[in-house]
Amino acid sequence: MEHENINALMDKTEQWILPELENVFTPAESEDITVKAALYSLFAGGKRLRPLMMHLTSRMFGLSDDIDADVKYFAATLEMLHTYSLIHDDLPGLDNDDLRRGKPTCHKAYGEGIAVLAGDLLLNKAMERLLSICESKPGYIYAASAMAENAGIKGMLGGQSIDIASEEKEISLELLTELQEKKTGAFIEAAVVTPYYLSKKMRRDEFASDKTANDLRKLASHIGLAFQIKDDILDVTSDSKVLGKSTGKDERDSKATFVTLLGLDGAKARLDEEILSIKAILSGFEAEGFDTEDYVTLTDFLVNRDR
Amino acid sequence: MEHENINALMDKTEQWILPELENVFTPAESEDITVKAALYSLFAGGKRLRPLMMHLTSRMFGLSDDIDADVKYFAATLEMLHTYSLIHDDLPGLDNDDLRRGKPTCHKAYGEGIAVLAGDLLLNKAMERLLSICESKPGYIYAASAMAENAGIKGMLGGQSIDIASEEKEISLELLTELQEKKTGAFIEAAVVTPYYLSKKMRRDEFASDKTANDLRKLASHIGLAFQIKDDILDVTSDSKVLGKSTGKDERDSKATFVTLLGLDGAKARLDEEILSIKAILSGFEAEGFDTEDYVTLTDFLVNRDR
Repeated sequence: MEHENINALMDKTEQWILPELENVFTPAESEDITVKAALYSLFAGGKRLRPLMMHLTSRMFGLSDDIDADVKYFAATLEMLHTYSLIHDDLPGLDNDDLRRGKPTCHKAYGEGIAVLAGDLLLNKAMERLLSICESKPGYIYAASAMAENAGIKGMLGGQSIDIASEEKEISLELLTELQEKKTGAFIEAAVVTPYYLSKKMRRDEFASDKTANDLRKLASHIGLAFQIKDDILDVTSDSKVLGKSTGKDERDSKATFVTLLGLDGAKARLDEEILSIKAILSGFEAEGFDTEDYVTLTDFLVNRDR
Repeated sequence: MEHENINALMDKTEQWILPELENVFTPAESEDITVKAALYSLFAGGKRLRPLMMHLTSRMFGLSDDIDADVKYFAATLEMLHTYSLIHDDLPGLDNDDLRRGKPTCHKAYGEGIAVLAGDLLLNKAMERLLSICESKPGYIYAASAMAENAGIKGMLGGQSIDIASEEKEISLELLTELQEKKTGAFIEAAVVTPYYLSKKMRRDEFASDKTANDLRKLASHIGLAFQIKDDILDVTSDSKVLGKSTGKDERDSKATFVTLLGLDGAKARLDEEILSIKAILSGFEAEGFDTEDYVTLTDFLVNRDR
């Protein structure tokens, strides 16, 4: 397989996912103000990291074009879930952010009420898609069900809830790790494992004891933590123009991060550990004959990115 | 079959649905602040009209106890979707209501951020349940998929969006009818049709041409409109102590209702028409040998209720 640098991989992901995202709503539905607000955020220039990871897992296992079309469908669905979580997280009652990816946040552009509904709509539509594809492909039910759980109290929403409950409180490194494994880690897990789930079409109990599935979940967990630790480091070392969002915000909000709990050097050391764990798991996959080079490229990007 | 008055039917529904609702979250999950807020609203003393309708459809067709257990599962799921829609609708950016069912609204009791997340959680968990039951019972996929659509842009959220877009604007009777058919009608449709869908386990294309399914959808549409017209009438004729929520609010908000568009007498006449349509459809079901007496009791309640 031909390998590319991270920018080429990202461009390819954007080309791959864009037509899928453009067809989520019909032209008639796109006249609706809530749909417009949802599309505003969906096309606000995110890095599409989750679709990228899905693309990479697909390539690592050499999945067929047939499966790849469904991977793309699930990748767009996950991107919708991710976008809804950002719209609601930015609301005044939560993080109260005016700027996201260098543009006004959804509620700044469309008002608070419509932003609430736009988030609800993306969540609901994502779930409609998960159910809808299972009408014709019942073998995907576990993959769909697992993705929905990644968005719920065991995953992203559980992390958001810990986050809001610990505002302006001192929290332990253990609780911060749990918070982040849920808040950002759960969607990364969904990205990393879903293509494999789709290719195997197994039941829940079969996946529980599947070695590859367990290795993928561990890989996702380390990628998620590495990603978040790097985010926390960038919040104190980057400037908002490069980052496309407010910086120094964690400190102003007295928010516990890996940097506030471990110090900048401690956070960098922890990031190095996570990267070592990622590379160890990738070596294992390589030894089994899978092509991990793109995942190595992604890992290097996670460490070295400046936004 | 033995028949009861509306209070007995409501009591029976509450007994039927309560254990199911109490088991939605595990005891450990119920320690979470967002779960607490969700449960606060889920147990805030609603009329459980949607579960009641599901119970009634189940009884009308004489569904077996086996199916009835799954009807209950879907009824709790629909009640979660309904409750999430109320929590978000009450938020300051939307209807800005302080009182719901005689108690402080979710955001008044738990704060705005947690109320946003509590709504998200109920929506997400409802969808997890729809997917989860299909893992073991793939024959339910269409019923689950249809319920998710009833909550989306084609249903409840589509109605919410028209509602927020038409605030302080003059709207036509036609648009008001579309708004209400989506905003309140879609969940009533889900309630009325789901037990039948569950009992038949058919695919989407099979239901499209099924006469009973179409009659049930029409029944639901007329019940939904009758329910909303009555609500609009109560807003001007009842007092908030009986109603358990603010009254005269529609007028203060310059909100178009069936009363503002048709006048009080016009709205009452339109309500009578809807009731006639409901009774005509029920007569048809009766002629086919189904037991419609409980649905007639519900219809009489819809017209005569004072809250």
